[in-house]
Amino acid sequence: FPSKLPHVGTTIFTVMSALAAEHQAVNLGQGFPDFGCDPRLLDAVNNAMRAGHNQYPPMSGWPALREAVAAKIAALHGRRYDANAEVTITAGATQAILTAILATVQAGDEVIVLDPCYDSYVPNIELAGGVAVRVPLTPGTFRPDFARISAAITPRTRLLIINSPHNPSATIWSDAEMRQLEELLAPTNVLLISDEVYEHMVFDGGQHQSAARFAGLADRAFIVSSFGKTYHVTGWKVGTVAAPAALTAEFRKVHQFNVFTVNTPMQAGLAQYMQDPAPYMDLPAFYQAKRDLFMRGLQGSRLKLLPTAGTYFLCADISSVSDLNEAEFCQWLVKEIGVAAIPLSAFYGNGFDQRVVRFCFAKKDETLVEAAARLRRL
Amino acid sequence: FPSKLPHVGTTIFTVMSALAAEHQAVNLGQGFPDFGCDPRLLDAVNNAMRAGHNQYPPMSGWPALREAVAAKIAALHGRRYDANAEVTITAGATQAILTAILATVQAGDEVIVLDPCYDSYVPNIELAGGVAVRVPLTPGTFRPDFARISAAITPRTRLLIINSPHNPSATIWSDAEMRQLEELLAPTNVLLISDEVYEHMVFDGGQHQSAARFAGLADRAFIVSSFGKTYHVTGWKVGTVAAPAALTAEFRKVHQFNVFTVNTPMQAGLAQYMQDPAPYMDLPAFYQAKRDLFMRGLQGSRLKLLPTAGTYFLCADISSVSDLNEAEFCQWLVKEIGVAAIPLSAFYGNGFDQRVVRFCFAKKDETLVEAAARLRRL
Ligand SMILES: CSCCC(=O)C(=O)O
Ligand SMILES: CSCCC(=O)C(=O)O
Repeated sequence: FPSKLPHVGTTIFTVMSALAAEHQAVNLGQGFPDFGCDPRLLDAVNNAMRAGHNQYPPMSGWPALREAVAAKIAALHGRRYDANAEVTITAGATQAILTAILATVQAGDEVIVLDPCYDSYVPNIELAGGVAVRVPLTPGTFRPDFARISAAITPRTRLLIINSPHNPSATIWSDAEMRQLEELLAPTNVLLISDEVYEHMVFDGGQHQSAARFAGLADRAFIVSSFGKTYHVTGWKVGTVAAPAALTAEFRKVHQFNVFTVNTPMQAGLAQYMQDPAPYMDLPAFYQAKRDLFMRGLQGSRLKLLPTAGTYFLCADISSVSDLNEAEFCQWLVKEIGVAAIPLSAFYGNGFDQRVVRFCFAKKDETLVEAAARLRRL
Repeated sequence: FPSKLPHVGTTIFTVMSALAAEHQAVNLGQGFPDFGCDPRLLDAVNNAMRAGHNQYPPMSGWPALREAVAAKIAALHGRRYDANAEVTITAGATQAILTAILATVQAGDEVIVLDPCYDSYVPNIELAGGVAVRVPLTPGTFRPDFARISAAITPRTRLLIINSPHNPSATIWSDAEMRQLEELLAPTNVLLISDEVYEHMVFDGGQHQSAARFAGLADRAFIVSSFGKTYHVTGWKVGTVAAPAALTAEFRKVHQFNVFTVNTPMQAGLAQYMQDPAPYMDLPAFYQAKRDLFMRGLQGSRLKLLPTAGTYFLCADISSVSDLNEAEFCQWLVKEIGVAAIPLSAFYGNGFDQRVVRFCFAKKDETLVEAAARLRRL
């Protein structure tokens, strides 16, 4: 039978993690912490299991967790989502994004993505029968190019997907840019998916500009986040979607026939844990220290480092250390230097190669020190 | 924007569970246990979390769990699946089925389902751009009607979905029926999804006829099962798919862009727990005792009980107790008698009403005794 995704192989993250294991490399490829989470979060999940919370939760998610999410968005961004009708708990952010796309994109509808973008977006669009329209971010700076976004909008455009803090470039959208997008979309019916999974990792005093802060965006947006990223438990696969009631109703129609609902003990444990005075408040300082440690370690190297305003990724220009293209360089690096990284070309539709690779610094200090020492050999 | 699933509302299970809560009814509607699981399973998950298994597992699933599943299928059904290339762990059976459909069904492809069928199948087919072809099981007996299945197959038929033990009718397919299906499909390219989530609930010495036992079926099948059903943890949302390597490769292309992967602590805990001498071996006796207790309790009632060969459901003919149709009867029953049930019409495309409702007996003995006492008032 013909493949539904003929151009798709195994994700670059899976490939690089397997290579890292094979070569006993320091794995700065796939984005996940190599340190543990707060043990009180494990206590909360364990308590939930022992209290018997092991059967189906409500389809839309554990009520106390939906309420905690709504309260958090209200406190941080000033928009009040109705926890019952506008917040849904998902099996991670990737499931949230596929579900939002399946719920809104008809055969032939166009969806604009901004390259480089996370590797699930375009296959998700194709699975819904939609057409992905790839608009590049400005080369070099990764800033949104509003003229090009505007030019890409047609009567068939159903959705635009944005992502800030941005994986892989580690840039964050400014208040002015969000306003500019709001203006640009105002005369259109284009819906928005705002992928904000790195919302709590912004540095140097920067401010995450959630789509929730801009009524003209939030009124048309699925705002996606991830507990895995925020609480250092990427393997728990729990995420959230906040969206106006009409969008949420369509989202849930699909959600109920995709996963139906999400792991009960994790949801109940997370809800309990979120009663604490906002553990995510510490994340900027925590990850900024890791970023700075890693950057200091790389000072002696010949890699040219790009700025990291958000996410737990640091990008580096390899043009002064190697003649290989990004993908070849990452293969070589994991084998010869013992460090796994991700080529930025994996986030582009056309394989665009700007000689930049991405390192994940969500790692123990000793891991970062060791990786930097190896990279100084370049 | 136009709905992708205009005919779909909230699932009947969610609706009836909400009504049951509202009216403090005994909830025999949605299929889930009201008793706990083996505490050693909770210990295993807790140990996995404390051991630090909280980050992304491999995309295809925790290796020891995939191996335990392959070993179990080999022991019970004699087919050896390659744990690496042919077994995938999913976020429950529903996600497995949607993913298999998205991976195989192109726009306009036909998929045959046998009515009555689980309510996610047809929306799943529609989300893939496919056309659902509903073939009824034989009215009254719920046996497969091979003449009608055969007549429904066209050059556009991509998939057939079967389900045994069968929800909602509580019938199981016989060895002879599985062989007949094998013969019927032999000259075709039709793929198979075999939904076997109730595989360990078969009664009166009956034998679950997994598609894995029939090479002509297994070679073209996604065989789906559910740890939630087998280990009394429906809220954990962990399932499995076993399929030949070529099918699994396409399945995983979609899986990685749907949920990417599945909750690590639950997977690691289940893998540990499956080392035990097969706790699922006790399930037939365990659930048969519950079925029989519930049936004895209903002896004084005017409901006409249908046979239960498998699953944890008991169907009852309501024609001698009420003039209402199934859906109205279930609304009335939950409010006036205080017992939630599911109308079989919810499992048919055309709302076919045969005056039969479904009760779930995966409940504590005291729950079943109380429900039966209420139902005797009918
Ligand atoms: C889902 S595996 C990839 C994790 C991630 O978000 C990344 O590395 O970009
Ligand atoms: C996913 S909620 C429904 C549970 C179930 O399988 C049923 O009641 O039929």
